[in-house]
Amino acid sequence: MASATGKKAGHIGRDHSHLQWSKHNPPVVTVSSGEVVTFDAIDSSNGQISRSSNASAITTFDTGLANPVFGPVYVQDAKPGDVLKVEVMDLQIGDWGWTAIIPGFGLLADEFPTPVLHVWEDLDQTRGYTSFKGEENIRIPLRPFLGCMGVAPGTDDGLSTIPPTDAGGNIDCRDLTVGSVVYLPVFADGALFSCGDGHATQGHGEVCGTAIETPMKATLRFEVCKNKSWVTAPHYEIPPSSSGRSRPLAAVPDRGRHAVMGVDPDIMEASRKAVRNTLRWLMDTKGLRREEAYMLASVVGDLQIVEAVNIPNYIVAMSIPLGIFGSTA
Amino acid sequence: MASATGKKAGHIGRDHSHLQWSKHNPPVVTVSSGEVVTFDAIDSSNGQISRSSNASAITTFDTGLANPVFGPVYVQDAKPGDVLKVEVMDLQIGDWGWTAIIPGFGLLADEFPTPVLHVWEDLDQTRGYTSFKGEENIRIPLRPFLGCMGVAPGTDDGLSTIPPTDAGGNIDCRDLTVGSVVYLPVFADGALFSCGDGHATQGHGEVCGTAIETPMKATLRFEVCKNKSWVTAPHYEIPPSSSGRSRPLAAVPDRGRHAVMGVDPDIMEASRKAVRNTLRWLMDTKGLRREEAYMLASVVGDLQIVEAVNIPNYIVAMSIPLGIFGSTA
Repeated sequence: MASATGKKAGHIGRDHSHLQWSKHNPPVVTVSSGEVVTFDAIDSSNGQISRSSNASAITTFDTGLANPVFGPVYVQDAKPGDVLKVEVMDLQIGDWGWTAIIPGFGLLADEFPTPVLHVWEDLDQTRGYTSFKGEENIRIPLRPFLGCMGVAPGTDDGLSTIPPTDAGGNIDCRDLTVGSVVYLPVFADGALFSCGDGHATQGHGEVCGTAIETPMKATLRFEVCKNKSWVTAPHYEIPPSSSGRSRPLAAVPDRGRHAVMGVDPDIMEASRKAVRNTLRWLMDTKGLRREEAYMLASVVGDLQIVEAVNIPNYIVAMSIPLGIFGSTA
Repeated sequence: MASATGKKAGHIGRDHSHLQWSKHNPPVVTVSSGEVVTFDAIDSSNGQISRSSNASAITTFDTGLANPVFGPVYVQDAKPGDVLKVEVMDLQIGDWGWTAIIPGFGLLADEFPTPVLHVWEDLDQTRGYTSFKGEENIRIPLRPFLGCMGVAPGTDDGLSTIPPTDAGGNIDCRDLTVGSVVYLPVFADGALFSCGDGHATQGHGEVCGTAIETPMKATLRFEVCKNKSWVTAPHYEIPPSSSGRSRPLAAVPDRGRHAVMGVDPDIMEASRKAVRNTLRWLMDTKGLRREEAYMLASVVGDLQIVEAVNIPNYIVAMSIPLGIFGSTA
């Protein structure tokens, strides 16, 4: 689904990180709609954990320094009310990574009070997997993605990069591998996109609070969309199963999936928001009445927990296979 | 994953329905471990909706009569503390179905106060899809499964068939198509298994509160397991992607997925239970320490909303691809 074209217009290096989302952050790079930017992002520990660290690095871990994002990119002609389309064109992970149990963080925080650090010594994206508990025991397939992709919020205050919002950010969505597309609502002139938090892979939910955290080099293409007013929280498209997360349904062509997020401190309300946002998308783009959209979502939409750990905001997404829509839908 | 063998030992027809789960329900059929039973189940309206119904049938709909289950089957040698393995061998849907918005029911109940009924006139399992909004517009692939599969609870009181419990019941899990396997904890002598609530297909979450509801003929095989003490809520196995829900991961063999449910009135707590139950499974069957299991679940386990509408109990499942485990795991 990612376009092969797009002029490379800039690079954002490791020295251009920030720890707050703000429309007042000065842009590092300015691009036109359709252009490509490369990013070089340190891992989410922001240098607090290295290949030789042990659990003591978790004991002294400062979450106030964690989750740096890199940017922002100013996209010309992006105005509040527009939508920024971001195509994930290439992702290259580092050759090491880490997973930790950080006290106070994670879905079972009360039950895991002791710091734990696991360093993955042998990440090799070409090989496609890493091992847990010895070479032949458990193989973890690698599916790199950026945990953080977002734009500046509309607020005057700066916001932490830990919780995601309707402007994206720490969405930790494992489906956003190469070939996927993210749509973000624009709240500030130029959108002010940043990203970071490289993950070599992660399960839906990221239940212990961390993925396989790793440095990431990313290539993204940006496009300003003027007529997608239904995008009020992140939407994304997952490519067909040959390259991504969705799977074939024998009775319809495989065109990937369209997914819509709901972001909220209450995960049931996040589920409701995901459904409401999906109904709006179905009504605005497929011509369905609201009741029809609700029934269609019930029989063919999948409600997925995306992340349940980025306190205080959690994400549920509803995804719908695009192959169900005929030429007139 | 379903075995092709198994002696057919009984049949349960439409006249053997019940509307409460109870260990005091008299068995209709008694089978030995390894034997097969066929079921003929009316749809979940229990005859209140027919092919010629309109929305007035929803106005007069009596939820007290809804969701009949068919059985129970007494499985010899099944004792409290054992686990009942149920293989889904064959499912045949009816030639019509219905989806409704029932006031007071569904994830967005407050926003949809008006009864709506959609009748699917042309269900054809061989064709593999049905149409919504006209033949060429939206095609819904059919993936039949039983919304209800459960055993008698340990309580003396009878329980409604609407909310699911750790004993299963109205779990509404779209992954339980032919070839899948369900494991249920046994709470009463003989397990006392019943099923019903045929669905021609449904999305994860069943957000409007109904699927494509349809009559169902089912063929199930039962087996008593004595050494699966980690099954304290429903577990299930999804077959490899050629016939089911999971998808290939290039770096590991496709052996399907193992999934574990958490059932709770609070969906965040249901998520925690799903993770806790998964950790126990990983520790008991894969030899992992609890901290290792938690990190593995975070990097490779998917947290999925199964149903968010069967008040007051909701289900979240965590699933893990079985191909990650080597011969020594």
